[in-house]
Amino acid sequence: MGLPDNCAVKLQNKFAKGGKNLITDVPGVKVGQVTLEDGEKDIHTGVTAIFPHSGNLFREKVMAGAAVINGFGKSTGLVQIEEMGTLEAPILMTNTLSVGTALNASVKYMLRDNEDIGVSTSTVNCVVTECNDGTLNDIRGLHVKEEHVFTALTCAGENFEEGAVGSGTGMRCLGVKGGIGSASRILSFDNRDYTIGCLLMSNFGAAGNLKIEGKSIATRRIDDELIDRGSVVIVLGTDLPLNERQLKRTAKRAVAGLVRVGSYLGNGSGDIAIAFSNGNLVPHYSQTEILPMKMLHDDTLDRVFEATAEVVEEAVISSLYHAKTVKGIRGKVVRSLKEFL
Amino acid sequence: MGLPDNCAVKLQNKFAKGGKNLITDVPGVKVGQVTLEDGEKDIHTGVTAIFPHSGNLFREKVMAGAAVINGFGKSTGLVQIEEMGTLEAPILMTNTLSVGTALNASVKYMLRDNEDIGVSTSTVNCVVTECNDGTLNDIRGLHVKEEHVFTALTCAGENFEEGAVGSGTGMRCLGVKGGIGSASRILSFDNRDYTIGCLLMSNFGAAGNLKIEGKSIATRRIDDELIDRGSVVIVLGTDLPLNERQLKRTAKRAVAGLVRVGSYLGNGSGDIAIAFSNGNLVPHYSQTEILPMKMLHDDTLDRVFEATAEVVEEAVISSLYHAKTVKGIRGKVVRSLKEFL
Amino acid sequence: MGLPDNCAVKLQNKFAKGGKNLITDVPGVKVGQVTLEDGEKDIHTGVTAIFPHSGNLFREKVMAGAAVINGFGKSTGLVQIEEMGTLEAPILMTNTLSVGTALNASVKYMLRDNEDIGVSTSTVNCVVTECNDGTLNDIRGLHVKEEHVFTALTCAGENFEEGAVGSGTGMRCLGVKGGIGSASRILSFDNRDYTIGCLLMSNFGAAGNLKIEGKSIATRRIDDELIDRGSVVIVLGTDLPLNERQLKRTAKRAVAGLVRVGSYLGNGSGDIAIAFSNGNLVPHYSQTEILPMKMLHDDTLDRVFEATAEVVEEAVISSLYHAKTVKGIRGKVVRSLKEFL
Amino acid sequence: MGLPDNCAVKLQNKFAKGGKNLITDVPGVKVGQVTLEDGEKDIHTGVTAIFPHSGNLFREKVMAGAAVINGFGKSTGLVQIEEMGTLEAPILMTNTLSVGTALNASVKYMLRDNEDIGVSTSTVNCVVTECNDGTLNDIRGLHVKEEHVFTALTCAGENFEEGAVGSGTGMRCLGVKGGIGSASRILSFDNRDYTIGCLLMSNFGAAGNLKIEGKSIATRRIDDELIDRGSVVIVLGTDLPLNERQLKRTAKRAVAGLVRVGSYLGNGSGDIAIAFSNGNLVPHYSQTEILPMKMLHDDTLDRVFEATAEVVEEAVISSLYHAKTVKGIRGKVVRSLKEFL
Repeated sequence: MGLPDNCAVKLQNKFAKGGKNLITDVPGVKVGQVTLEDGEKDIHTGVTAIFPHSGNLFREKVMAGAAVINGFGKSTGLVQIEEMGTLEAPILMTNTLSVGTALNASVKYMLRDNEDIGVSTSTVNCVVTECNDGTLNDIRGLHVKEEHVFTALTCAGENFEEGAVGSGTGMRCLGVKGGIGSASRILSFDNRDYTIGCLLMSNFGAAGNLKIEGKSIATRRIDDELIDRGSVVIVLGTDLPLNERQLKRTAKRAVAGLVRVGSYLGNGSGDIAIAFSNGNLVPHYSQTEILPMKMLHDDTLDRVFEATAEVVEEAVISSLYHAKTVKGIRGKVVRSLKEFL
Repeated sequence: MGLPDNCAVKLQNKFAKGGKNLITDVPGVKVGQVTLEDGEKDIHTGVTAIFPHSGNLFREKVMAGAAVINGFGKSTGLVQIEEMGTLEAPILMTNTLSVGTALNASVKYMLRDNEDIGVSTSTVNCVVTECNDGTLNDIRGLHVKEEHVFTALTCAGENFEEGAVGSGTGMRCLGVKGGIGSASRILSFDNRDYTIGCLLMSNFGAAGNLKIEGKSIATRRIDDELIDRGSVVIVLGTDLPLNERQLKRTAKRAVAGLVRVGSYLGNGSGDIAIAFSNGNLVPHYSQTEILPMKMLHDDTLDRVFEATAEVVEEAVISSLYHAKTVKGIRGKVVRSLKEFL
Repeated sequence: MGLPDNCAVKLQNKFAKGGKNLITDVPGVKVGQVTLEDGEKDIHTGVTAIFPHSGNLFREKVMAGAAVINGFGKSTGLVQIEEMGTLEAPILMTNTLSVGTALNASVKYMLRDNEDIGVSTSTVNCVVTECNDGTLNDIRGLHVKEEHVFTALTCAGENFEEGAVGSGTGMRCLGVKGGIGSASRILSFDNRDYTIGCLLMSNFGAAGNLKIEGKSIATRRIDDELIDRGSVVIVLGTDLPLNERQLKRTAKRAVAGLVRVGSYLGNGSGDIAIAFSNGNLVPHYSQTEILPMKMLHDDTLDRVFEATAEVVEEAVISSLYHAKTVKGIRGKVVRSLKEFL
Repeated sequence: MGLPDNCAVKLQNKFAKGGKNLITDVPGVKVGQVTLEDGEKDIHTGVTAIFPHSGNLFREKVMAGAAVINGFGKSTGLVQIEEMGTLEAPILMTNTLSVGTALNASVKYMLRDNEDIGVSTSTVNCVVTECNDGTLNDIRGLHVKEEHVFTALTCAGENFEEGAVGSGTGMRCLGVKGGIGSASRILSFDNRDYTIGCLLMSNFGAAGNLKIEGKSIATRRIDDELIDRGSVVIVLGTDLPLNERQLKRTAKRAVAGLVRVGSYLGNGSGDIAIAFSNGNLVPHYSQTEILPMKMLHDDTLDRVFEATAEVVEEAVISSLYHAKTVKGIRGKVVRSLKEFL
């Protein structure tokens, strides 16, 4: 839902918001999440899954591009996105040390639905992204299990929660509680409306640097040994027919949203943006060797870029706005933005 | 001089400013400029030259890294910086259609001082950067001549002007008059002070988007057919021993300064950042095959990155602050920031 | 003409050759050259120009991708190809120190034909590539003038010579006389024939390393202070609808042709490949915001890649086969391959 | 051992071979492998682990660079190598669908030895590389378990086998049985000897394309639905003080070895090269903020590049030479090179 209209935090926006103000306003996009929370065992983590469309992703790939804003990160699957310009599996988010588990689960999920993989055709490129939730979560305990990932994948739908949920459960951002945030905007091209949406996991930035509409927010600085060991993973989705180069360009613009809320792109942060479009589908098996495609004229991309900055900015603030205060491992408390407003 | 302490525009800064608050606070760095201005002939253009140190640059190269923030640009010399990690000639700035002339002059300048080039050793990689000043300047007239470039190269020193001077003479930025801006900061590592400085040519951004310390500045929108056909070229220099990878990472952080003042990294803008360090010199001819080098520990780069955001932000605002109103070709007037403050 | 069928040098080929066995077999592609040769003045240099199609390139851009195989080079225009995926001007080749002159001439050529550039629309990205011919040519003399470049641009047609001509006049390769080489192949997709062609300027490789069909060719080693200060620029053109990502992938495969003839991709060589397709044209001005495009299915690219290796290999050998022995500056003689066969 | 001196296959070499002619000739480098083979269950897979030095890799990182020759691959950990220029965990090789399992095991291995990870310091970047062995192996059965990976990690030493072993057990290459191959060379700089070694997993190339010293080897073409769905992972190690940029340049030269044996870098192949040097160690915790480093002068890199081509070429052929004929899943037989010689 992004930021509700009547909430204490206001951001200006140039573009109209989508119906739900979520990435799932993009037709076909689905999101599933599993939240793992057990204060006694210091478990504050989870999984978030994003489906770029509702059909068979391996058979009908979406075009995609990724931007490594800062590469101190452990995401998988980006190499093939760069080479082939497509995404053929859901995007998973989890904590840094659970990437292998999420990858295993995603591989099994894709094998289950595609009997040809590894037999009569190639293997599959599963994308798993991550942030380090070790400030609050017992990340060394490896509490995410394959069944949790499976649940996130199989429960996906158009509605989902924001804040300290899913893979965002244990995240912190700019000194306050971070997590999952989302927003969407409507753009019109050739007299047709298209949607651009963002879902992100916020775990970046130094305490004290948060800005909302240019104003610094006084947040009490927590005592934080893992300072700046964060990350942010930003997923942008659209039904506008952007090709892989244009999607990479769009992904790069996510940085504008991050800087607006106070990031200076610190050294130890794995800041990754992935953009996809389901406006062109690339078939795994094709009857023709030459495929028809649509492509936006680059001269009109400014609207896409400015809307990207806007949805990323709102999604970060929304992730903070919806997150509750969490007391985590080693007694660490990370407070909700709402406590400071 | 960046922004004077007593000026109408105030930016917060975390880091101490250098003595001149110019890129030439970095020991050895020199800047030379030629301003070409003739209102009757619609000439509003020029050349700016930056020397990374004061010795023979071809014989003692500096380490360097470049970031293509948005590649709708025509700079030369970046390919070799990326491959070799060094800079062996001064960095030139001029208007887009004069890159060839500046390149010719730079080649001749380097040949003059190095008799071995092209005879007993390799050729030389001259770096020329550009922005499109066609809104105000008769850019099709190709008014920059090789002698102008030579003058900028030979007159270089530690003091230089900001605003509508040098290559910045005809630039416009965020709806107001842009140009050359500079700033510097002091950072301490291992108990020694180092300087990081910025010189940039501002020609980017849509009218109406300017922000100073988060506040929008109401600037009258000019009637502008070339809107968003701008660019920005950012040069960062330091004596801190950053290696070529770290310099590239630093160059990437320039984006934080751009976003702070209102950029969303538009489609048609050639946004290029080049960072160099004269803290390690790489000899063209070496008596040993293995060279000793110094390298900052990456864990301490956060200070460099945050200071980079700060000098870029201030250099943009300073370029606007020092620029005067200019009436250019086709009667176009681009007003000084001061008129709006 | 590539290698004539009855010549002393034989290469196996899997794919059928085009009618002329030149890059100009690709419909619309034109090539123009100017050879500057004056033994008394040590002038052995020139200009080669390649037009991706025969219309207005600025108004109807071709898709393009570039691969920097080794970036010790001074080419201009690659940054924008990478960002925008298009080429909007002819590709020029000349000697390293004449890039500025070629760039100036190309800018003027484009301004002449497009009155909107720099007035009512953006500027233009002119691509100039280079190799160092300083072993034979008085490269410091800067003997290429703008009028030579203009002549190469205006005389372009479907027929052109190979060997020690155009920008290849003073080049040397693998210890023998290098220069301009070309070849083409026919590929069929969806029951229609397409052409892939190559034109390259060969100036790379160490003496003694030349291989033809895997056999080392004994070439007398010349006494060579500038050893390995070479380069190679490879242009690949096609009418097959490859998009910019696929063209970049194709450009990368040029390396296979280089290695087959004996390169190990030396340190000091500026090895650049540019691939374009005129199978999709991208309009500068468009009435619709969304454009229809065609794209080859990546699964069928293997044929394109293998044909690329083949045309590059043949074009290198053809450049050597057609080149005559040249006596250049400082009495240096570089012998023709034919003298060793 | 690379190719034995008295074997049927001969390659010319310019550089002296290391004592074992293995990557473990580089001081400190260790290799461990686990071979999983059970013909009744169609299991033909395994794990290979490479340690860049023998100490604590997280505390004393090695410099590293990676080249994505073709990115149709699923390796993990490359993003951080590119950003930080270091490697802080062993490099693992396994089959494509077992990357998640190998990653989990590597994470646990690193956590076991480093109690600070995820508590008082950052997490850890584990590198896992892969090829698709589905032609022979029941890859969908996911037969690699974490304990197998642990065994490969804990059994590592200076001696190891080549051929159809470790992660190479089920691989095929250029139509014959592929697998693990290795070789090394000695280079001298400033009067001191250094070693450059290669270990690779060969699984690339089309049947019929194999060349040895330029001669095609007639290999019976197998009936192969998964043709060109291969990959190759190449690890290069040295004690020569190359920095991260130079290591990336070196990694790129692996392509010369691949092309020499018959590759044209097919579409569906995940071809990745990683180069590391233990000639400079980068401490995780440092008492000083500025570190002393050594760096080879780039002018001397040609020897490194030519030796790289040589070790990669020999390692591919050695992987084939040592591999036995294997009968795999669906009755597929992939024959040993020795059967064709």
